[in-house]
Amino acid sequence: MTPQTEPLLTMGVDLGGTSLRVAAYTPEDGILDSVALPTRLEAGPHAVVEDMCSAVRELHERYSDGRTLAGIGVGSPGPLELPAGRLHHPPNLPGWDGFHLLAEMEKRLDGPIAIESDANAAALAEFALGLGRLLCVDSLCMLTLGTGVGNGIILDGRLWHGAAGMGGEAGHVTIFPQGPLCGCGNTGCLEACASATALMNAAERLIASGKAPGLAALKRDGVSLTALDLAEAARHGDKAAQAIYADTGRSLGIGLAGLINIFNLPLYVIGGGVANSWDLLSPAMFEELERRSYVYSLTAPGRAAAGGMPGGGTRVMPAKLGAEAGLLGACILPLHLPNHKLAGGVAKA
Amino acid sequence: MTPQTEPLLTMGVDLGGTSLRVAAYTPEDGILDSVALPTRLEAGPHAVVEDMCSAVRELHERYSDGRTLAGIGVGSPGPLELPAGRLHHPPNLPGWDGFHLLAEMEKRLDGPIAIESDANAAALAEFALGLGRLLCVDSLCMLTLGTGVGNGIILDGRLWHGAAGMGGEAGHVTIFPQGPLCGCGNTGCLEACASATALMNAAERLIASGKAPGLAALKRDGVSLTALDLAEAARHGDKAAQAIYADTGRSLGIGLAGLINIFNLPLYVIGGGVANSWDLLSPAMFEELERRSYVYSLTAPGRAAAGGMPGGGTRVMPAKLGAEAGLLGACILPLHLPNHKLAGGVAKA
Repeated sequence: MTPQTEPLLTMGVDLGGTSLRVAAYTPEDGILDSVALPTRLEAGPHAVVEDMCSAVRELHERYSDGRTLAGIGVGSPGPLELPAGRLHHPPNLPGWDGFHLLAEMEKRLDGPIAIESDANAAALAEFALGLGRLLCVDSLCMLTLGTGVGNGIILDGRLWHGAAGMGGEAGHVTIFPQGPLCGCGNTGCLEACASATALMNAAERLIASGKAPGLAALKRDGVSLTALDLAEAARHGDKAAQAIYADTGRSLGIGLAGLINIFNLPLYVIGGGVANSWDLLSPAMFEELERRSYVYSLTAPGRAAAGGMPGGGTRVMPAKLGAEAGLLGACILPLHLPNHKLAGGVAKA
Repeated sequence: MTPQTEPLLTMGVDLGGTSLRVAAYTPEDGILDSVALPTRLEAGPHAVVEDMCSAVRELHERYSDGRTLAGIGVGSPGPLELPAGRLHHPPNLPGWDGFHLLAEMEKRLDGPIAIESDANAAALAEFALGLGRLLCVDSLCMLTLGTGVGNGIILDGRLWHGAAGMGGEAGHVTIFPQGPLCGCGNTGCLEACASATALMNAAERLIASGKAPGLAALKRDGVSLTALDLAEAARHGDKAAQAIYADTGRSLGIGLAGLINIFNLPLYVIGGGVANSWDLLSPAMFEELERRSYVYSLTAPGRAAAGGMPGGGTRVMPAKLGAEAGLLGACILPLHLPNHKLAGGVAKA
C-alpha cells in the first residue's frame, strides 16, 4: 500500500515589461485560475515584487486547501544571471539593473522558487506540453518572435543555461553585420531583423521612402500599424507588406540555419505573435534553410540522414501553445527543475 | 587486493584528405609511435581503409605486448552521420559520399572502434589534455581554422553530437549573407571568411585588384603565398596583409559572438594554422565580441557576471596542443566515449 498523498499545486508568475500574470496550476487540471496586473515600473522593482508576491499569496490561499505546494515558478525578462537570479540591464525592465529578483521574492514568499528567463519558460512549456510532447523529442530550440526575439534551448531534456545562466540568447546572433541597430547595442541581430518591432520599423521605413503606398494609406486612416495589420495587408495582396514578411522569413531562416548547423536538433519551434503569419514567413525561411544549412538539407524529413532522428528529421514548426506558453512554462518550472524539495509555504507576510 | 591489470593501449587514426596518420597511445606515456601515409584518394575509399587498417595492425603488433587494447579511435573529415559512421558528401574526401566508414573498418579490425569528426577529436584533446584541463572547465567550443573551419562542442563533459551526429558545424554558420561562396554551397559561411583558404583567396583578390603591391611582389618572386607568408608580411608592416588578418579576426569575432550568446560557455578555443597568427587576428576579434555579444561583455574575466563561472569568466584563447590535437583526440576517443567494452583485438586479417 502506498501512502496517500495530496495532489500537487504550483504557482506560476509571468513577469513582463507592461503586465504580470500569476496563476495557480495542477498537473491534473492545468491552470485553475489566473490574475493579470499592470507592471508598475514607475514605482520601482521592490513595489513590483510586492505586487507579484501579494497576488501569489492571494491565489495560493484560494487553492491550497488539500494540495501540496510543489513550488513557485517565475519567468522573467532577461538577461538573468543564474543561479543567482540577478538581472543585468534588462531592456524591458528599465531601472532593474543588478536587481536580485530571486532573493527579493524569497524574502517575501515561503517555499521553493524556480526562476528562468521568460523565453526558457515558454520553451519548457512547448517541450513538455506542446510540440515536444507530440513529437516525442528529447531536445528542441525555440525562438519567440514578439517585441523582441526570445530563445530557449532544451538539450537532452534539460534547459541549457550556460555557465552564468545566460545561454539561449540566439535573438542576439548577428544576421546582417551592417543591419539595423538592436536594443542590445549591436547591429543586425536576429531581434533587429525578425521581431514584431523590426517588422513595424521596416514598414515605417518603406512608408517614409514612398515605396509602400498601400501601407501609407492604412496609416493615414489614423490606424497605428501593427504586425497583424501588416499581415492582413500582405494577405490582401499588398506587395510591400509581402516583401516585409519575406525579408523577416529570410532573416529568421539565416538565424535558424546557423542553429541547425550548430545543434542538429530534431525540433525548432517558432513562437510569438509574428509566428501567427507562418504562411507569409515560412516560404522564404525554408528557402534559406535549404541554401544555408547542409545539416538541414541532409536531415529534413525524408532526407538521407533523417532516418535515425526522433520526430522523423529536422522539423521547423510554429508553436502550439500560443500566448499561454510563458505562463504555463512558469507554472511547470517547479515540476521540472531538479533539487526543488517539496514543501508547504507561500505564507510569509 | 585489487586484481593486477595490464596497462591500457589505444590506437588512433587521423584521416585527412591528403594524408592519414596512425598512432599507438597509452594514458601514461602518450603517443608511443606514429606513422603517416598518403591518402590514396584516386584508389577509392576501400583501398584507403585497407591502408589505414594495415597500419593499425602493424603498429598494434609492435606495441600490444603486455597491454590491453581499450579501442581504436578514428577522426574523420565530415559530415559524418552518427552513430552509423557514414559519410555524406565530405568535401575533403571526394567520391566517399554514402561510404560506411565505421562498418568498413569493423570488417577489417577486431576490437571496439570509436569514430568522430576530426574537429570533434581535436576538441576532445583540447578538453582533456589541453586548455580545458588547465582551466578545469566542464564545457568548451573549439573552432579549427585550417583549410576549412572545423568545430567541436563539449557540453557538461560530453561531445555534442546532435540527433544525427551532425551538430558542431559552426564553420558553416552564415557570417556575411552576401559573402564569398563556400564549399558547402552557401555564401558567407565562417569557413568562407576565416579559414586559411579564405585568407589566401582574399590575398589573391587584393593582388588582382592592384591594391596589394607588397603581396604582389612576394608572389612575383615565384613563391606561392601561404597564410604564413601573409602573416610574416603583416608583421613586417604590409598594410594589405594586416587588413586581411583584421578582416579574418572580424569574421571570427562575429561567429564567436553568436556562439557565446547561444551557449554562454566558459571556454572558446581557436585552433588550426591560422590561430598561430593570434597577434594579428585577435584585436579585431575581441572588438567584435564586445560589440556583438552582451553575454560576452557581461561575463568576460572580471565583469559583473563572470564570478561564478568555471575558468573565471568567458575565455577565448588560442589552442594549446597545435597540430597534434586531431591525432591525440583520436587516440583518447576510446577512453572517453561511453559503451566501449574493453576487449583484445585488432588482429582480423
